[in-house]
Amino acid sequence: MTQNSENTLKIAHQGFEDFTHGLATGEWNDFLNMLTEDFTFWFPNGEYHGLNVGKQKAKEFFEYVSQAFNSQLIITSVERVTSNDTTVVFEFRDEGKRMGEPYKNRVAISFDVREDKICGYREYFGSDGKSN
Amino acid sequence: MTQNSENTLKIAHQGFEDFTHGLATGEWNDFLNMLTEDFTFWFPNGEYHGLNVGKQKAKEFFEYVSQAFNSQLIITSVERVTSNDTTVVFEFRDEGKRMGEPYKNRVAISFDVREDKICGYREYFGSDGKSN
Repeated sequence: MTQNSENTLKIAHQGFEDFTHGLATGEWNDFLNMLTEDFTFWFPNGEYHGLNVGKQKAKEFFEYVSQAFNSQLIITSVERVTSNDTTVVFEFRDEGKRMGEPYKNRVAISFDVREDKICGYREYFGSDGKSN
Repeated sequence: MTQNSENTLKIAHQGFEDFTHGLATGEWNDFLNMLTEDFTFWFPNGEYHGLNVGKQKAKEFFEYVSQAFNSQLIITSVERVTSNDTTVVFEFRDEGKRMGEPYKNRVAISFDVREDKICGYREYFGSDGKSN
């Protein structure tokens, strides 16, 4: 493993911890502080479907997620972590209530790392959210 | 990179090439030959939603995919490949016609490798299939 991929993994793990905290509590500051100003993210559906650009857009998005899940979307297990020099993918399961309805999903998120920040994020759904 | 992760990457790349060929042509034999007998796969929706067990089930599934896409689902770009000792994730885009309707998606698939075979597969969708 090169130095670069070690750093990438370290930063991504810190980011994932802050992301997990954000989903579980609605407190996104630590995660947002890890993002570059030119951060981009892709989301599978709804009003943020497709490519979204900028840290401000990310802030709005994660607040929207926490509203939808009443700040209680819990990552119940992390199934796999894979990486290369610049990117780390987390496969996990989450569970909560979306707009009051039971929600469970299998999810893959892919973080791109630049130096000590996360500069990109792609989310993929392994289910329809009704069960995993 | 350990010997193990090198072999895992090599096998997964071969599998992904055969998978790409299967999607583009409906010819799945090469890919199916790479699967262990106890192969399992997870799919996001439809009649194969959730966990599916066994190589025979995989054969039925991939034939069903090729029917739905008239044996012409094209992988247009591979965006990222990440890996560890046992698992390789491919993030890619694909495009075709599903039941005759234009279809585009961003997809992540995760292969688990055991020796020179693929023993597991998890698929995740980055979009609703109507655009990426």
